[in-house]
Amino acid sequence: VALARRSDMKVVADSKQVVEGLSSAMCRAGLELPVLIECDTGAQRCGVTSPADAVTLAQAVDAAPGLKFKGLMTYPPKNSTARTNAWLTEAFDLCKRSGLDVETVSNGGTPDLYSAHEVTIATEHRPGTYIYSDRSLVEIQGFGSLADCALRVHARVVSHAAPDRCVIDAGSKTLSSDLLGLNGYGRVLEHPEWEIYGLSEEHGHLRAPPGSGEPAIGERVTIIPNHACVVTNLFDRIYAARQGRVETFYDVAARGKVQ
Amino acid sequence: VALARRSDMKVVADSKQVVEGLSSAMCRAGLELPVLIECDTGAQRCGVTSPADAVTLAQAVDAAPGLKFKGLMTYPPKNSTARTNAWLTEAFDLCKRSGLDVETVSNGGTPDLYSAHEVTIATEHRPGTYIYSDRSLVEIQGFGSLADCALRVHARVVSHAAPDRCVIDAGSKTLSSDLLGLNGYGRVLEHPEWEIYGLSEEHGHLRAPPGSGEPAIGERVTIIPNHACVVTNLFDRIYAARQGRVETFYDVAARGKVQ
Repeated sequence: VALARRSDMKVVADSKQVVEGLSSAMCRAGLELPVLIECDTGAQRCGVTSPADAVTLAQAVDAAPGLKFKGLMTYPPKNSTARTNAWLTEAFDLCKRSGLDVETVSNGGTPDLYSAHEVTIATEHRPGTYIYSDRSLVEIQGFGSLADCALRVHARVVSHAAPDRCVIDAGSKTLSSDLLGLNGYGRVLEHPEWEIYGLSEEHGHLRAPPGSGEPAIGERVTIIPNHACVVTNLFDRIYAARQGRVETFYDVAARGKVQ
Repeated sequence: VALARRSDMKVVADSKQVVEGLSSAMCRAGLELPVLIECDTGAQRCGVTSPADAVTLAQAVDAAPGLKFKGLMTYPPKNSTARTNAWLTEAFDLCKRSGLDVETVSNGGTPDLYSAHEVTIATEHRPGTYIYSDRSLVEIQGFGSLADCALRVHARVVSHAAPDRCVIDAGSKTLSSDLLGLNGYGRVLEHPEWEIYGLSEEHGHLRAPPGSGEPAIGERVTIIPNHACVVTNLFDRIYAARQGRVETFYDVAARGKVQ
């Protein structure tokens, strides 16, 4: 209610219970909240699981005081533009046929962003990782190169006590433990053959194969993280640099605010 | 230097490069910094890899202006008290024999805390997870019960759109992706048979086996995280409650300060 008062907020729902809860809160507050129906088009996260269920719930939103039915929303599975478009078009048509106006059809995700135009029913697309790109997009999806990735973690080699491994000052509290199907916890831009094979909380454990350059204590390295989203969430501040010069910084406003 | 000025700080070193860097910084600042030699007693993190290397580096610290040799420090591997004690005792004796005073022998880790007294050479023990305990200590190490775990994440069932899964509002930005060899991303205290089988960033994906209690949208659940340390690091504030009543809170002062 507090957020709805001070911002242009839309929310999603995928159940009658949530629709009823939103409706009674908005009625008490004297507000009208735009609601989209979350659609599970195959990613098996949240969302109603069929176009028929989408229109049934859309009708419930339309009938609920304090709410305004606004449209459909999905986070699609990867490589699924044709299927996503078919699903959303069927739900759109069913809504129209039952007299509901579908103002917004919101698609999302970075993996399918480059084919987002194939989801012709969509009126908007919400990409997240896209703003930075990361190692998973480059090495799993094949988009761009590591040099294109804007989110970079600067770390330093702090220990080389054994010949077969060394340690950098970036661990799971910096790079997160997200693997996303990749080997290793990030890619070192200056030495792409080095492997960050393990993490403790404050340290990354690194192996340099023969011929890949010998790590020197004190050496600064640039790491492209596996998963930009969760790494951003571990920092209070992101520095924006161009050609090695910091031009500005951004505070990560919402991080840590999960309680 | 700033920290050393305002606090009783000790640091560790496992290389000549770090000793030289610390020495020159402390000389410039006109300070004397206590330094312990980090010893790799088998955990393969940081640390010199033999007692002979420990005493060589201890002598370098002792000779370096601006530094004071203080003792030995290790983070030991699990279930290794006898080996850890033998390693540290050998290094201690070598230091003594070369005329160095070993004031502190610092052991650490929660998994071996209950046998810490067996490391008779240690003068202190640094346990981390112990303050809270977590699912990994209960289910892997066999210490205490889930009900003993003080760090708890309260989450809510927000979706149950398909019969075979539901979604809670705690994902990898709340529970972290740390598995530590466990199945699932945390244990639901009220329904220990429920399985948090997957995480997206803001959502946990939950399966309730037949007979384990049907999740209800809006139901609040208490999650014991796999790994207390990294979960603490995801929150700005920890609330301290006794019998369901919040008595105080603690700001997580150092989190997000990795840049």
